[in-house]
Amino acid sequence: MTDSNTYEPRGFAVHTAPVGLGDDGRDDFTVLLSTAPATVSAVFTRSRFAGPSVVLSRAAAADHRARGVVVLARNANVATGAEGERNAREVRAAVAQAAGLPEEELLIASTGVIGRQYPMPALRDHLKTLTVPLPDGGFDRAARAIMTTDTRPKQACRRVGDAVVAGIAKGVGMMEPDMATLLTFFATDARLDPAEQDRIFRRVMARTFNAVSIDTDTSTSDTAALFANGLAGEVDPAAFEEALYEVALTLVKDIARDGEGAGKLIEVRVRGARDDAQAKRVGKAVVNSPLVKTAVHGGDPNWGRVAMAIGKCSDDTDIEQDRVVIRFGEVAVYPPGLPGARSEEEVRDAVAAELAGSEVVIGIDLGIADGAFTVYGCDLTEGYIRLNADYST
Amino acid sequence: MTDSNTYEPRGFAVHTAPVGLGDDGRDDFTVLLSTAPATVSAVFTRSRFAGPSVVLSRAAAADHRARGVVVLARNANVATGAEGERNAREVRAAVAQAAGLPEEELLIASTGVIGRQYPMPALRDHLKTLTVPLPDGGFDRAARAIMTTDTRPKQACRRVGDAVVAGIAKGVGMMEPDMATLLTFFATDARLDPAEQDRIFRRVMARTFNAVSIDTDTSTSDTAALFANGLAGEVDPAAFEEALYEVALTLVKDIARDGEGAGKLIEVRVRGARDDAQAKRVGKAVVNSPLVKTAVHGGDPNWGRVAMAIGKCSDDTDIEQDRVVIRFGEVAVYPPGLPGARSEEEVRDAVAAELAGSEVVIGIDLGIADGAFTVYGCDLTEGYIRLNADYST
Repeated sequence: MTDSNTYEPRGFAVHTAPVGLGDDGRDDFTVLLSTAPATVSAVFTRSRFAGPSVVLSRAAAADHRARGVVVLARNANVATGAEGERNAREVRAAVAQAAGLPEEELLIASTGVIGRQYPMPALRDHLKTLTVPLPDGGFDRAARAIMTTDTRPKQACRRVGDAVVAGIAKGVGMMEPDMATLLTFFATDARLDPAEQDRIFRRVMARTFNAVSIDTDTSTSDTAALFANGLAGEVDPAAFEEALYEVALTLVKDIARDGEGAGKLIEVRVRGARDDAQAKRVGKAVVNSPLVKTAVHGGDPNWGRVAMAIGKCSDDTDIEQDRVVIRFGEVAVYPPGLPGARSEEEVRDAVAAELAGSEVVIGIDLGIADGAFTVYGCDLTEGYIRLNADYST
Repeated sequence: MTDSNTYEPRGFAVHTAPVGLGDDGRDDFTVLLSTAPATVSAVFTRSRFAGPSVVLSRAAAADHRARGVVVLARNANVATGAEGERNAREVRAAVAQAAGLPEEELLIASTGVIGRQYPMPALRDHLKTLTVPLPDGGFDRAARAIMTTDTRPKQACRRVGDAVVAGIAKGVGMMEPDMATLLTFFATDARLDPAEQDRIFRRVMARTFNAVSIDTDTSTSDTAALFANGLAGEVDPAAFEEALYEVALTLVKDIARDGEGAGKLIEVRVRGARDDAQAKRVGKAVVNSPLVKTAVHGGDPNWGRVAMAIGKCSDDTDIEQDRVVIRFGEVAVYPPGLPGARSEEEVRDAVAAELAGSEVVIGIDLGIADGAFTVYGCDLTEGYIRLNADYST
């Protein structure tokens, strides 16, 4: 589903290399950098166990001036104490020096196993070889180099006026708000007012990366950032927001489809809520329910589990059973006895047919007011268990 | 682990029968009834999709006068509309009439698939055969008859003075607070002050059935009730609370061990929290984490996932990484570099040894204050997926 017809924004260089963070010799070190000064918008995990990469990057992004990011894949550098913090600073400083930048203009992100130190000797050997300008490997190499248990790279791009918005993402497990993927980076040559860029970025993240959920676990390393260098001149902000939304939504759907062990994309569309926040809460309760996820995996037309999951929002006392409508695709399954309703058997057969596809849409109308939100997730399979029962070893 | 050395409180009759709620001919209909007037304490699911059984029972228990409960297994009678409500009333009324009781002295509980009507013709055929007094089949038959996907009955009892506290429970999936199992019933011939009985019951439930979690899904039908008929006379309240706690904890551990597909009991002991509520929140975040559960299943010494799960409590901003200590059994795994700490390799080997057992104890000290709470759960396995991908069909 990734847009294979790629085109890239002007003035960004991408460097990737294998530095031995894993043991299979593939690229696991990435630098994405604007050759011109750039404005950054970024959001980060709220985890109380955020690693030093997140701490350093949050500080660097605070003034909205940063040119790029260095990414280390397959080692999160989290829960590694003072040594881990020193290592993160050393890596960032070395890349910044090679690029001729102040280190505060560089973000750093790290993803993978928690609780292990970087292999610093191998890293230092590679850092010494970095030269300016960085050889440009292209966004598609970066999309591969930041992967951990992803089975495929996630990459998308859109044109907006003379500019391009490109995005890459990785993340397939340990994903839930507040930032629902481990890592995603966007680059554009559009020029935007920095404050407006930030508002657009946060709105788009709220509807995309904060609307996807794989397993309710939240990463210690979640980072999303947009770098804009303005080389293509000004663009219409509304058109830019739409382009960024399309790029982000493409990545989010790719992430849900590639959830660990996942076979199906689940989209839960909630409307009729008191407000959007309630709609999101109900959507998350449904898309995160292990019983809903396993029913979708098994193609089991057990729609009662959706009712159960809605019922979990027990603090939302304005949710009343007799106002709720539940649909699978176009099939209304609840309440029983709707005008023109089918028999229990017919409903089950129709739902089973819906579940046979690779994308399952569950529609919920709470019948309260106009709040609406759509969330994205995936089914829960034996593959998830196998993958996660033996990841670190 | 169930206490096989069973003894029963005086004055309770147990009736079980197969009424065709499932299709395998086993007992699925249970009546547990005190022959003398009794005092009830009860708590129920807070689900917004609670079924008519919960609605009727909540009303019946409000005045603390009830003699027993009728239980239907393998059909939840939830999301079944007005017809489901009429059916629940009819079943309860027929049992109450056969027992010569006002229907308000009888609770009703139902557990199983959501969204299907009871098979009323078969149920009515059986209800006509009920006679007074009910033949007494014993608590062990009731413990079996209330099962759904349970692989074994859960039953426990303790003596307290001249009295006995007996308990049965069922529930292996769809379990999370506010009432962490589908159904559990306690019967005692002890005499207690009704208000004190209620306080004791709620305290014990908070430390046991509200401290167990299998899959974060909350049942629409959760019901816990204690019936006390006083036939053995007064008992020391503190001794009674301890006996009830032991019975309930035995059932809770049996439930966690028998979680759908579960292979291991996980006990998460949190201390050093700001208060008990924070300790419970952190414990639940850990015991519910799919990544922690799969790591335990796989015997993978990936303790970083416990740090990640603690980090999910992002609103608890007083949790600081450098004050947290994490242990697997007796092995301190975090922070790195504790005095006398082992190497990464040694820690991993020691944790792997801990995980090889059938009971895994994870200890967390938040280093803030004196709050403490222990929660119980189980690992997440391929068996859970297989069972739930094809349950209703």
